[in-house]
Amino acid sequence: MSYLALSDEELSRLLRDDVPCGDLTTETSGIGQRPARLEFCARQDMVVCAIEEAARLFALCGAEVKMSVRSGLAVSQDELLLQARGDAQMLHRAWKTAQVLVEWASGISTATAAIVKAAAPVAVACTRKNVPGTKALSVKAVRAGGATMHRLGLSESLLLFAEHRLYLDESQACTVARFKRAEPEKKLAVEVANIEEAILWARAGADVLQLEKFSPGALADCRNALNNAGLHVVLAAAGGVCADNAFAYARAGADLLVTSAPYTAPPKDVRVTFIRD
Amino acid sequence: MSYLALSDEELSRLLRDDVPCGDLTTETSGIGQRPARLEFCARQDMVVCAIEEAARLFALCGAEVKMSVRSGLAVSQDELLLQARGDAQMLHRAWKTAQVLVEWASGISTATAAIVKAAAPVAVACTRKNVPGTKALSVKAVRAGGATMHRLGLSESLLLFAEHRLYLDESQACTVARFKRAEPEKKLAVEVANIEEAILWARAGADVLQLEKFSPGALADCRNALNNAGLHVVLAAAGGVCADNAFAYARAGADLLVTSAPYTAPPKDVRVTFIRD
Amino acid sequence: MSYLALSDEELSRLLRDDVPCGDLTTETSGIGQRPARLEFCARQDMVVCAIEEAARLFALCGAEVKMSVRSGLAVSQDELLLQARGDAQMLHRAWKTAQVLVEWASGISTATAAIVKAAAPVAVACTRKNVPGTKALSVKAVRAGGATMHRLGLSESLLLFAEHRLYLDESQACTVARFKRAEPEKKLAVEVANIEEAILWARAGADVLQLEKFSPGALADCRNALNNAGLHVVLAAAGGVCADNAFAYARAGADLLVTSAPYTAPPKDVRVTFIRD
Amino acid sequence: MSYLALSDEELSRLLRDDVPCGDLTTETSGIGQRPARLEFCARQDMVVCAIEEAARLFALCGAEVKMSVRSGLAVSQDELLLQARGDAQMLHRAWKTAQVLVEWASGISTATAAIVKAAAPVAVACTRKNVPGTKALSVKAVRAGGATMHRLGLSESLLLFAEHRLYLDESQACTVARFKRAEPEKKLAVEVANIEEAILWARAGADVLQLEKFSPGALADCRNALNNAGLHVVLAAAGGVCADNAFAYARAGADLLVTSAPYTAPPKDVRVTFIRD
Amino acid sequence: MSYLALSDEELSRLLRDDVPCGDLTTETSGIGQRPARLEFCARQDMVVCAIEEAARLFALCGAEVKMSVRSGLAVSQDELLLQARGDAQMLHRAWKTAQVLVEWASGISTATAAIVKAAAPVAVACTRKNVPGTKALSVKAVRAGGATMHRLGLSESLLLFAEHRLYLDESQACTVARFKRAEPEKKLAVEVANIEEAILWARAGADVLQLEKFSPGALADCRNALNNAGLHVVLAAAGGVCADNAFAYARAGADLLVTSAPYTAPPKDVRVTFIRD
Amino acid sequence: MSYLALSDEELSRLLRDDVPCGDLTTETSGIGQRPARLEFCARQDMVVCAIEEAARLFALCGAEVKMSVRSGLAVSQDELLLQARGDAQMLHRAWKTAQVLVEWASGISTATAAIVKAAAPVAVACTRKNVPGTKALSVKAVRAGGATMHRLGLSESLLLFAEHRLYLDESQACTVARFKRAEPEKKLAVEVANIEEAILWARAGADVLQLEKFSPGALADCRNALNNAGLHVVLAAAGGVCADNAFAYARAGADLLVTSAPYTAPPKDVRVTFIRD
Repeated sequence: MSYLALSDEELSRLLRDDVPCGDLTTETSGIGQRPARLEFCARQDMVVCAIEEAARLFALCGAEVKMSVRSGLAVSQDELLLQARGDAQMLHRAWKTAQVLVEWASGISTATAAIVKAAAPVAVACTRKNVPGTKALSVKAVRAGGATMHRLGLSESLLLFAEHRLYLDESQACTVARFKRAEPEKKLAVEVANIEEAILWARAGADVLQLEKFSPGALADCRNALNNAGLHVVLAAAGGVCADNAFAYARAGADLLVTSAPYTAPPKDVRVTFIRD
Repeated sequence: MSYLALSDEELSRLLRDDVPCGDLTTETSGIGQRPARLEFCARQDMVVCAIEEAARLFALCGAEVKMSVRSGLAVSQDELLLQARGDAQMLHRAWKTAQVLVEWASGISTATAAIVKAAAPVAVACTRKNVPGTKALSVKAVRAGGATMHRLGLSESLLLFAEHRLYLDESQACTVARFKRAEPEKKLAVEVANIEEAILWARAGADVLQLEKFSPGALADCRNALNNAGLHVVLAAAGGVCADNAFAYARAGADLLVTSAPYTAPPKDVRVTFIRD
Repeated sequence: MSYLALSDEELSRLLRDDVPCGDLTTETSGIGQRPARLEFCARQDMVVCAIEEAARLFALCGAEVKMSVRSGLAVSQDELLLQARGDAQMLHRAWKTAQVLVEWASGISTATAAIVKAAAPVAVACTRKNVPGTKALSVKAVRAGGATMHRLGLSESLLLFAEHRLYLDESQACTVARFKRAEPEKKLAVEVANIEEAILWARAGADVLQLEKFSPGALADCRNALNNAGLHVVLAAAGGVCADNAFAYARAGADLLVTSAPYTAPPKDVRVTFIRD
Repeated sequence: MSYLALSDEELSRLLRDDVPCGDLTTETSGIGQRPARLEFCARQDMVVCAIEEAARLFALCGAEVKMSVRSGLAVSQDELLLQARGDAQMLHRAWKTAQVLVEWASGISTATAAIVKAAAPVAVACTRKNVPGTKALSVKAVRAGGATMHRLGLSESLLLFAEHRLYLDESQACTVARFKRAEPEKKLAVEVANIEEAILWARAGADVLQLEKFSPGALADCRNALNNAGLHVVLAAAGGVCADNAFAYARAGADLLVTSAPYTAPPKDVRVTFIRD
Repeated sequence: MSYLALSDEELSRLLRDDVPCGDLTTETSGIGQRPARLEFCARQDMVVCAIEEAARLFALCGAEVKMSVRSGLAVSQDELLLQARGDAQMLHRAWKTAQVLVEWASGISTATAAIVKAAAPVAVACTRKNVPGTKALSVKAVRAGGATMHRLGLSESLLLFAEHRLYLDESQACTVARFKRAEPEKKLAVEVANIEEAILWARAGADVLQLEKFSPGALADCRNALNNAGLHVVLAAAGGVCADNAFAYARAGADLLVTSAPYTAPPKDVRVTFIRD
Repeated sequence: MSYLALSDEELSRLLRDDVPCGDLTTETSGIGQRPARLEFCARQDMVVCAIEEAARLFALCGAEVKMSVRSGLAVSQDELLLQARGDAQMLHRAWKTAQVLVEWASGISTATAAIVKAAAPVAVACTRKNVPGTKALSVKAVRAGGATMHRLGLSESLLLFAEHRLYLDESQACTVARFKRAEPEKKLAVEVANIEEAILWARAGADVLQLEKFSPGALADCRNALNNAGLHVVLAAAGGVCADNAFAYARAGADLLVTSAPYTAPPKDVRVTFIRD
């Protein structure tokens, strides 16, 4: 998980968002060339994410930087995450951009890890409903938290919604056959709204059923009904899945929990300490 | 508030994140050229944001689109937001990108509006701690919710932190004088941690004091102490400000409430209905 | 298949590659403002691709444009593809960029279609070994030719190479079990070099075997050996697959043919005729 | 020829095309942090190109890399091109992007070199009909193969087509005079379709005649006719020029051979070997 | 000259430079939705440039716009250039970006036109020493003023400096022969510092001599010396050429005047008038 | 002032503008791999700017580079600025782009410094009327010259023009009150055209008056009138301010001088010397 999810230019864009034309306060204060140091420490227990990108932000501003952890590690309160050294101008330039990045991404990772823990050993996948424009970082955070992605987007997976079926005039079996012939390397997932649809599409040959807003109880019923019909299919619980109900969904027989919850998790706090030698 | 916060290329980048290489399910299903329509409606009361960008996303995919509201409007559950018409391929391509955009941005706008309402008539400003890479949209959402921005970044405002003062070896008065001479068109804000610092910097001539993590009570004490000293300065409450305590801070004498809370507000749900004529 | 694979800015970048600073010959000749028309016609039979992007290039240069076909259609020699009208400067500016785009993309589509036809009804998938920097257009051309993509890249599919296994110290069964638990929505593909490996991984539970550089005969032997062992798995032929051997691979029992051949297909010629009214 | 034709951001874009959101197979396999090495060797004789860019791709993924050759060198089968060392995640991330880049660019270089060798000492120039979006790399490959560029685009050279002349109502002499007065630092090239046009434009003062789809015999006739008329002009053969006929065109009296053939040359194979120490 | 030198995304970037996050004054004033009109008029005589880009900026902000002139036209004081209509928010958003663009570009065009007029009928070419990052617009302005470009950059022309020759160990004739064989479609220009060098390189076969910082008198002497030696070569005067000495250089026998002077010409003033209906 | 105002990708874009496809002269001459050195020296006294970016340009081309000064320093004629070492191809590639960058930016810095010196101790601010597309570098140059920015753009400051007031139907006091309540952290600036307006808006509570095209005498009158009325407000002189009148404006009682003059200052000359060891 230690790869950089953003290129130097993408990181520079984050810096430009915050410092398009120099750091006015630091320049006006006249402290820009003073030697300076800082440390990032965890204020709370967290699963760290984006510390590599934070380190690179300091480096892009000219500072020397040393990471103490890497993305995906669970750290305890007060643990040291990163140290940077340079002049005051370099450190002030990258400070908040780097801090906010780690806090936000670690918020997602930590929230993801909580769902993963509750659902274990059933897998957890996050949806593509990440905050607009943050896909690469969001995926890194999801994986740092121990989950995987449900689908990255529309180009690489087959998920048949009612919104597609509305325009189809053929039997389920016919649809499934066409998809399987065209895409033998991919599983065909179908979103269903109730047990009847689940049975119908499992019988037609779908590989995965995405059960939209089924309660854990309804999911268990669906699993039973499918078992009784001799239908073996991956069941993915989706819609409203979170840390609180993850165990229930897993116990109810889901093979996968699909969730968007981590994307609006609160950030995890990072304490930043400047030091004057 | 009806301007587009993103250029066509930035919107295309959001589409590329989700659909880099065609919509596999829709293409495989063979429904791509079927005429289709859809509607966006509010599933909850909300202050709408980013509906202009959503409309443009559909247009970039080739659809005709009609907005029923604009960013900044408060709408009620079930109200129509937008209609699009084209072929199934166009609508499926833009669907989720547009929906997630409106849901996320309206989440920020609605949460902002709640704080604004609680604080009124005291102004509310949101920090630059938006989700990384989303500044233009986040600012639009903040303003659609009735708040303003605390500062956009480091290049356009003066906010003196303890992390700057650590490297300064001069009196407060001297620092303030240097800033005022250099930047006569800007107010000088100073972040302070307690009443003593507040008095010190107000006396030195700071225009704004940012009171970091003061309780409403401590803020009221600070205001009194300043009044008693005959010091008139803008007081901005910051650190932990949210809808629940906004009224208390306003009543305690703050001139401005500074908050990051809306940035991780839960999205507001939009119901999307496809129609086959 | 009629979507635009490139955004306006990406199309403008193609124009900038060719005309960074104005069209020197046209400007010097003084004919820039003369009214002008042109037509694109097929010089050869071809499966058209990128005609939508070509049309948009003319529009971006200010011309009116009318398409007579869309990507994915098979056209005969001399068939009209597109007409544009504007002034000479507009048409000369977009001419070659648009022509080369259609010729190159239609070369891929047509070559793809030939393999698809030979392999039918077995599916054909193209690899990610497209010309560097051309993925979106290459995928559009592949699909216009009737094939699909083997994988778009490393982020969305599971394909275990010997180059991965070199670093694994566990049984095949153990590896497969870990992948299936972690990624229940995806098929696990494994590249194998001979029948022994094929049996081993099929028995371990792989969903797809990618047979690297098997001859059609060796593929048939592999299919037989798997059948005899009661192992049902998708067999994908890869390495050297082209129009000439596609039928043989299909008849030998492949479920999918994986090929890079279309990416260096010769362009299909488009005749461009300027008209002076 | 050892310069980098692509910036780090352009190389990162190639990586993003292939690995937008992490390497799923490598991450799921759990081998990401294992120390690893690899080597690129030539599977065939080739004129190498883009090895600098390949090396930089590995470096951008965090690996150490050592080049054994540079672009423009002719290497023999089995010669070592490049070595990289890092962890398995770094090497797997860059592997195919780097390999495909070298294979494709070396295909162009090698094909170019074959035409250059056949035409020597007559110069060879490649057209601007490179694969869309690949100009910088294509030009590097052309030059690595020993040829030059005919023209980079419309902004920097004068090439008068019939498609320009269609809108001109003046004598050839008048046209030539206008161009020479306006652009005294550039040669004026004119595309001609037959010997009569060649004589006409040479007499009018064109510096270069581009003979479009003349056979070698027709080119020799044209050269003779010009000589007989006392007209000295650069003759460029264009349209269908390739390695097979390059010698014939050179012998027929061309001063320059203009070709698009190398752009769809088959890639040259590179063998990639992973090593576990 | 009426093409757009910048794509929509490049124009949007200019707007983002000025309005990254909304127009604070207009929004705070509450006038954003008021219907509004404005006009651009020339405050001085000028050769207009970039009016097409200015118009597009207003359109990108949602306004309707009508141009009264096009780039390259000479207009008199008070002449109407452009009208825009929309709401106050749209017009205020684009106002200054559009105005500054026209003023700056027209400054270049007008200054160029003055040199062109003084030198006529001798051609004028501007150097590549444009303000960094402004090449496309600068070239448009140069051509709108009636001049051409000396060279666009290093990739498309041959100009041999002393700084190249420092590393060459061969005769001038040998150098020239190598260049002419390699690049038969291009003229070879050589920068020379005195008459001796001029004679040497003309004799060796250079096509163009760039006379660096020759006075008009020295240039005339050089021309005479070359004539006496029977050497016919294009003479380009460079270094310090401006409107004041252009006539003298032309009369002294230059075939081309090369200048950087227009790039720092003062802007031409545009009067912007807002109207309330 | 030693930060890099442009990212590596932005610097690469400057190089691409000048060298999109290799350095033709250097490559053709065959000197590309020869070891080479160069030096930048000041030809004139100047306040240096953009030397960090120039150094980075050489580094991006592969050269080793050593700076002798940093942005913001005043240097004398003949002082060494920078040394680079590499092969001839690297140095020729970056040469002019780096030289033009330093010359142009130092032109702005030096012109700014002259105004700052004349106005001292009154502050000088430059407008947002920089050359289009050069904001980040222009701001760096302005600050290197000792001035600050008037406003970076429309998103971060309040400046009420007559063009806003045209659409307002309320008293000045009402307008001011609304702005102050909404934006308590910012000063409200109002552009005024005469003393009457100045008094009116000062009385209404504006923090800053921007006096547009007041002569120094008119400014002094305005200051007196305000003093007589007991109105204390920041007075900014704008419109036509330059080095020649800066002292007069400062003496007349301005608190700030606002100027666009440095943006079209003539470049400062840098002498570049290539060395062959």
